[in-house]
Amino acid sequence: MSAATRPPHRSPEAQIALENAFADMFANVPLHQLLGMQVVAQSPGKSQIRVDMQPGLLGNTLHQRLHGGVTATMLDAAGGFAICTAIAEKYSDEDFEQLGHRLARIGTIDLRIDYLHQAQGPCFIATGNVLRLGGRIASTQMTLTNHTGQLVATGAGAYVVS
Amino acid sequence: MSAATRPPHRSPEAQIALENAFADMFANVPLHQLLGMQVVAQSPGKSQIRVDMQPGLLGNTLHQRLHGGVTATMLDAAGGFAICTAIAEKYSDEDFEQLGHRLARIGTIDLRIDYLHQAQGPCFIATGNVLRLGGRIASTQMTLTNHTGQLVATGAGAYVVS
Amino acid sequence: MSAATRPPHRSPEAQIALENAFADMFANVPLHQLLGMQVVAQSPGKSQIRVDMQPGLLGNTLHQRLHGGVTATMLDAAGGFAICTAIAEKYSDEDFEQLGHRLARIGTIDLRIDYLHQAQGPCFIATGNVLRLGGRIASTQMTLTNHTGQLVATGAGAYVVS
Amino acid sequence: MSAATRPPHRSPEAQIALENAFADMFANVPLHQLLGMQVVAQSPGKSQIRVDMQPGLLGNTLHQRLHGGVTATMLDAAGGFAICTAIAEKYSDEDFEQLGHRLARIGTIDLRIDYLHQAQGPCFIATGNVLRLGGRIASTQMTLTNHTGQLVATGAGAYVVS
Repeated sequence: MSAATRPPHRSPEAQIALENAFADMFANVPLHQLLGMQVVAQSPGKSQIRVDMQPGLLGNTLHQRLHGGVTATMLDAAGGFAICTAIAEKYSDEDFEQLGHRLARIGTIDLRIDYLHQAQGPCFIATGNVLRLGGRIASTQMTLTNHTGQLVATGAGAYVVS
Repeated sequence: MSAATRPPHRSPEAQIALENAFADMFANVPLHQLLGMQVVAQSPGKSQIRVDMQPGLLGNTLHQRLHGGVTATMLDAAGGFAICTAIAEKYSDEDFEQLGHRLARIGTIDLRIDYLHQAQGPCFIATGNVLRLGGRIASTQMTLTNHTGQLVATGAGAYVVS
Repeated sequence: MSAATRPPHRSPEAQIALENAFADMFANVPLHQLLGMQVVAQSPGKSQIRVDMQPGLLGNTLHQRLHGGVTATMLDAAGGFAICTAIAEKYSDEDFEQLGHRLARIGTIDLRIDYLHQAQGPCFIATGNVLRLGGRIASTQMTLTNHTGQLVATGAGAYVVS
Repeated sequence: MSAATRPPHRSPEAQIALENAFADMFANVPLHQLLGMQVVAQSPGKSQIRVDMQPGLLGNTLHQRLHGGVTATMLDAAGGFAICTAIAEKYSDEDFEQLGHRLARIGTIDLRIDYLHQAQGPCFIATGNVLRLGGRIASTQMTLTNHTGQLVATGAGAYVVS
């Protein structure tokens, strides 16, 4: 997009307010509350989601491993949230309500998760990264790491947008 | 496997006891308790897992949609449980403790989920089906349907076994 | 779709002519010619693609195995062709030229292939099946079998349509 | 692995001879010959595979696009070859014949491809990267770029090793 046609960016204050609103919206999704998922970082096309280990999230109590379903949920959410931030950047001339209509139409088409290492540790970070934001389809890559930075899982997702 | 080398099958009573033990083990996994996931049917190489809708499982409150992470968790669990039942059939001469060691070594390698229709309704059934149980790798297909039988999602998974 | 609003179906002759035109179009795709891929059956939402084994398609000469890339190509093509037939059914009031514009816009978003058994034999059939044809996204499942009917591979794909 | 237990590395000459032997082996796979696929770079756990565009590889003649099946084949091959180089590093005390037996047992379990941009251009490079080489399973990520460096597709694969 040329500088001439690019929509005006938000003021730094408006951008911060928007990001806070996005993070609140994310934290208020019922399943995110149940699992304790929170946005800890965001920038256009990128996201970081955190979960602190708690007994209810275990898939294996003997080895204290996070259930693979929590991994899948975090990767899906990190991909979806990264798209939210990319859309907010692309349509930076729109207000929160207009953006809200766009975000409500994001839906996961499909998801792949590769489980690489045992998910053990006190907390986990899922990182989402938008590879391509098209007019109808967005593609993302995601990772899950534990507190030591070990790569626990990777993911790839396709999402419908509009 | 020829009839001559095939291990003796369990008695009907022992098979029922084993299936009940498997279902209990499944229900006691912490995340399964948190989400309310239960085994409702099983046979060698097949499984059915049920979740009743509850507010904490929503991904979208406006449209009362199940979060895609619950779908992913159910499909992963249905695939893994179907492998448990296939292993119990393959090693039908082994007792519960020996089988337990085998089941503890099952791990998801990777998972794909295709989201086909909105996940709305009072309950959902994930069905797992083992396509191939090898000596090291097992492959499964899964579906998620709602109370009307509508196909909500499909999945495919690869699991390590031994 | 109710009977009242459903577009008029083609005559049997027109349907046959259309299917033949589709099969020719498929066979004329350069890579399909190179690999010897042909449509052997089609109906709305379903397809069967055949390849006869030839030396150039091997991935392993010692065990005479079909290369996994041929499997992937066949599954992708079977999924895409199944969508063509589903679109032709959905827009049965459109002529070949109008349909051609629709078909030209079909594109694979992503694809998953599960390799289940060694791909050995004189010929292979890929079967495509449309699970969902939406206004923007279509989802398919595919299988590859050999001449004995053994399941060699399964696949799942998401495609953009319009 | 500690320095004490680490197997002795090959001499630079032996390493070069091994890499050349690997590249020849790759180029001699019948489908790789048919499609014109060649190894252009390798290091432990990494690979680069090149294809020059030729008419037979097209999926769409009007827009001169590479067929998605060639993309899938290149990504699968790049992932598999990256595993070969990782195994050669891991077992650097073994000779070519011993390594050959290991490489012959590598098999693709499953593969995901995300198609991001039209595959247009005079040549394409697939890059493979091993994320994890376990005793039984290896996981890889792959990309396909064209001559301008544009990201055309990404992939993820799981492979059986031993």
